[in-house]
Amino acid sequence: MSLPNHFELLATDAGARTGRLTTPHGVVRTPAFMPVGTAGAMKGMHWRDLRDAGTDIALGNTYHLMLRPTAERIAALGGLQKFTGWNGPMLTDSGGFQVMSLSDLRKVGEHAVTFRSHIDGAKVELSPERSIEVQRLLGSDIAMQMDECVRLPAETADIERAMQLSLRWGERSRRAFEAAPAGTMLFGIVQGGDVPELRHLSARGTVATGFHGYAIGGLAVGEPQAVMLAMIEEVAPHLPADRPRYLMGVGTPDDLLESIRRGMDMFDCVLPTRNGRHGVAFTRHGQVNLRNARHADDPRPLDEASDWPSTRDTSRAYLHHLVKSGEALGAMLLSEINIAYYQRLMGDIRDAISKGALGEFYETTRADWERGDIPPR
Amino acid sequence: MSLPNHFELLATDAGARTGRLTTPHGVVRTPAFMPVGTAGAMKGMHWRDLRDAGTDIALGNTYHLMLRPTAERIAALGGLQKFTGWNGPMLTDSGGFQVMSLSDLRKVGEHAVTFRSHIDGAKVELSPERSIEVQRLLGSDIAMQMDECVRLPAETADIERAMQLSLRWGERSRRAFEAAPAGTMLFGIVQGGDVPELRHLSARGTVATGFHGYAIGGLAVGEPQAVMLAMIEEVAPHLPADRPRYLMGVGTPDDLLESIRRGMDMFDCVLPTRNGRHGVAFTRHGQVNLRNARHADDPRPLDEASDWPSTRDTSRAYLHHLVKSGEALGAMLLSEINIAYYQRLMGDIRDAISKGALGEFYETTRADWERGDIPPR
Repeated sequence: MSLPNHFELLATDAGARTGRLTTPHGVVRTPAFMPVGTAGAMKGMHWRDLRDAGTDIALGNTYHLMLRPTAERIAALGGLQKFTGWNGPMLTDSGGFQVMSLSDLRKVGEHAVTFRSHIDGAKVELSPERSIEVQRLLGSDIAMQMDECVRLPAETADIERAMQLSLRWGERSRRAFEAAPAGTMLFGIVQGGDVPELRHLSARGTVATGFHGYAIGGLAVGEPQAVMLAMIEEVAPHLPADRPRYLMGVGTPDDLLESIRRGMDMFDCVLPTRNGRHGVAFTRHGQVNLRNARHADDPRPLDEASDWPSTRDTSRAYLHHLVKSGEALGAMLLSEINIAYYQRLMGDIRDAISKGALGEFYETTRADWERGDIPPR
Repeated sequence: MSLPNHFELLATDAGARTGRLTTPHGVVRTPAFMPVGTAGAMKGMHWRDLRDAGTDIALGNTYHLMLRPTAERIAALGGLQKFTGWNGPMLTDSGGFQVMSLSDLRKVGEHAVTFRSHIDGAKVELSPERSIEVQRLLGSDIAMQMDECVRLPAETADIERAMQLSLRWGERSRRAFEAAPAGTMLFGIVQGGDVPELRHLSARGTVATGFHGYAIGGLAVGEPQAVMLAMIEEVAPHLPADRPRYLMGVGTPDDLLESIRRGMDMFDCVLPTRNGRHGVAFTRHGQVNLRNARHADDPRPLDEASDWPSTRDTSRAYLHHLVKSGEALGAMLLSEINIAYYQRLMGDIRDAISKGALGEFYETTRADWERGDIPPR
């Protein structure tokens, strides 16, 4: 039996799509970029500023939250949206990816993955059923099936084993999700690494299980962009057109634009906040490294045409000084500047798709990026 | 010749005063608390939030700024207010205090203090004349004379030597200030440690030199609160009633309330932001340590009666989680919660003085603090 559909496709332009996804905590305009609030907080940003920057939906990491403060505690406090004060749509991952990257002594079995917490060393078991339970306790609007993600490059046999396990875990995740509150959603995840045949198999199997939406996982894990885009092209035709499509862990503004042209609707990435903490801004002129001494005496803002006040009004000289001095405000300003740029880009892309003008927008945006930063004074 | 007076005394209540100090960048309502933006930034707070929290004037540290990005660079960029985007009144210290506490190989001479920069080891000389020049380059609304501050307890001979040197440096500072832009101000600093006779001598000498306003320095440097308040009582009668009085580096909300009752008008302290970074909130219920496990499951805010949104709407459980997880947002929220509490306290005190009701306000405020935090659930 197919699951109810909360996605409305509003317009397409060549391969690109724009739509509305309705969640219990509000509507998400797609294409959508989801900033990552790992442990219940955005790094260096107030939730109020995240919303002002044009964010519809944020991502919370199940692995971090189940260990601290624990899912049960968050449930008792009314769920993640109320706990954090964000009060908007929230997608949670399954926890599987961070188990692989952060925990010690992990062991993947058919039933579950067992690991030791990176916080206190406690032994923890995470099964597909427990992952769904944790995500329900967190109050997730969109839960993800548990999967196994293989870092590339990898042997085909390893990729296939993880992909098949992910299909079985997807079925168990869907069964476990049957008692979930009305309006909440479960997304399946297509795996298969960089092997087209495995991607096809995974896509068909995942769609056969049936989910509210479909994610492509196992990309942006070390492969070139061309491989990533090729894999999207292999998978997209197998996904139902009326369901949302989420490309996990991606990416740069360029990655997003290229993926949207290939039919993807949702994205998450730590890049805007992480690069911000490292002194790098995403702008209309491409990436700008504020550590560079060329900015030390430059009174000009990053982009005088931006509608985000910090981008338009803060001098490069001040940002350079903050970054060089290690002042927290530097990371705070660059994180919000980057999130605002991402969200403005998403809004512009949605508008362009609605008007059937994405091709033109694509050309001018890429030309701006390739032209690079304004010349030094 | 006495300097022009930009201070207007509006009301007094017993020893306490409320007034308006007009600077080139705007009016400061007194009693005023000045948050400390050490190196051109508040730690963990956007300037916009500092203003929203009720801040009229901020403090910049000459020592930090002269070393990086340098006063000349800030001057070329239009001054500290424009550089930071704060655009409001700014007081700068002389740099002398931080030379003593932060630099290496410092040597105090009659002409100047020489030291090595804590940033790059460069040898730097700071004289009263250079300090005034640096503060003018920074675009300071209120500059401070250079002085020497002695940490307590200290030998009387050491306190006296530093006090006499500060008097001579005060005269040189005033001469150097003669060419300063109209409307900007220079405050003298009364030294003398915990020795009443030296405080009297210093106060009379400083007033004889003549400044726009008068500061009491060399307190909050290790002595008990009773000693600090006693020294204020020794000095205040020697200061002209029509000039603003600034107690440097103070303090807790209780220190501020007690000092205001003894006639002080202006204060600066890193305590609200520093304690915020360490997980401690200043509230109507006194200081609250959010690290304490009693808050882990507590959905209540720090103070449901506060008019500052983060204080009224953020749960103790969330703050506890952020602090325990080392999330930057914890320090950011507690810094703004603390600054907002300080500024609200200043506003309430100004209102109470205006109405002649400071005595009653003092009793109820102290009773709230002494009652302590609300009971655990």
